[in-house]
Amino acid sequence: MRVLGVDPGLTRCGVGVVEGVPGRPCTLVGYYVVHTDPGDDLSLRLLHLDRALTDLVAEHRPQSVAVERVFSQHNTRTVMGTAQASAVAVLAGARAGLPVQTYTPSEVKAAVTGSGQADKAQVTTMVTRLLRLDAPPRPADAADALALAICHVWRGGTRSRLAAAAAQAARRGGTR
Amino acid sequence: MRVLGVDPGLTRCGVGVVEGVPGRPCTLVGYYVVHTDPGDDLSLRLLHLDRALTDLVAEHRPQSVAVERVFSQHNTRTVMGTAQASAVAVLAGARAGLPVQTYTPSEVKAAVTGSGQADKAQVTTMVTRLLRLDAPPRPADAADALALAICHVWRGGTRSRLAAAAAQAARRGGTR
Repeated sequence: MRVLGVDPGLTRCGVGVVEGVPGRPCTLVGYYVVHTDPGDDLSLRLLHLDRALTDLVAEHRPQSVAVERVFSQHNTRTVMGTAQASAVAVLAGARAGLPVQTYTPSEVKAAVTGSGQADKAQVTTMVTRLLRLDAPPRPADAADALALAICHVWRGGTRSRLAAAAAQAARRGGTR
Repeated sequence: MRVLGVDPGLTRCGVGVVEGVPGRPCTLVGYYVVHTDPGDDLSLRLLHLDRALTDLVAEHRPQSVAVERVFSQHNTRTVMGTAQASAVAVLAGARAGLPVQTYTPSEVKAAVTGSGQADKAQVTTMVTRLLRLDAPPRPADAADALALAICHVWRGGTRSRLAAAAAQAARRGGTR
C-alpha cells in the first residue's frame, strides 16, 4: 500500500510518500515541502499548491492520501491558511479518485511514538528510525507528513476501502 | 463586466452572477446555492463543491470571481468548513485563469447598503432593489453572493486587471 501524507500549510506544506503494510516497517518513497510566497495573492498561492500536490499525486500514484485534520483551536494567525491548504490537499486526492483520510495530530503522534503528547523532535526521531533513514528528514513539515503516511498505512486498511467505495460512488454521481 | 460572487460555506455555498459596470445598476445573470451533506466525508463534500463551482464558472464565463474573506473570529464551530469552502471557491476561479478578489463582509455591506454594519435583511433588500428583482433572492446565502458580485463590479476595475496579469504570469510559470 502506497500512501501520500500531507502536513498542510499555506507557506510550507509537507508531503511524504511511503509504502508498506499494517504492522511492518514502511519504506520511504520520497518527501517534499511545497512553498508558497506569503507576499503573493491568495489565489496564486492556492493555485501553486494545487498544482504541486496534483503533480505529486500523479507522479507517485498512491492508493490513498492522508491529511492532518485542522482545528480552530490552533494558532489563530495561521489557522485560516492551514484550513485552506488542507482543503487543497484533500481535493487533490479526491479529484484523483483516491480515498482521503484525515487524522488528528495526536492520532499521528500516538501511531509513530506511542504517545499522543509527543513533541516534534520525538516524531522526527521515530520517523527516521521507522523508515531506517541515515538522517532526519528536514524540515520538520516533511517529517510530519511522513508520520501521517506511516500512521495511515498502519491504521488505514478498512477505512480506506470504505472511503474508496464512497469516492467511486461520488465519481459516478452528479455535480450539484 | 460579468462577475461570479461566492459566499463560501461547506453546507450551503451561495453563488451569484451579475453583469455591469462601475457606478451603474447591475443586471442579474443567475444565482445558486450549492449544498453538501454534513453527514458525508469531507473529501466528498469538497469534491462536490469543487465540481459545482467549476461547472458554474464554465457555464457563466465570468471575467472575474469575488469571494468573501473568512476570519478566524467567526463562529469557531463552522469557521474551518467555511475556510475550506473558500479555498475551493478561490481555486475554482484561479484554475479557470480568472482573477479572484476577496472582500470582507463589511466592504460588501458598505458597497451595497452604504453601511459596513448593515444586517442580512438590509443586504437582501438592497440586492433586490439594485438588481430590480420582483422578489428577494432566497436563501440569504444567494443574496450575499450577489452582493459580493455587485461590490466587485463597482470596486473591482483596477485590482482585477492587476490580478489578471498576475494570474496570467502564474499560468505561464512552473508548478513547484
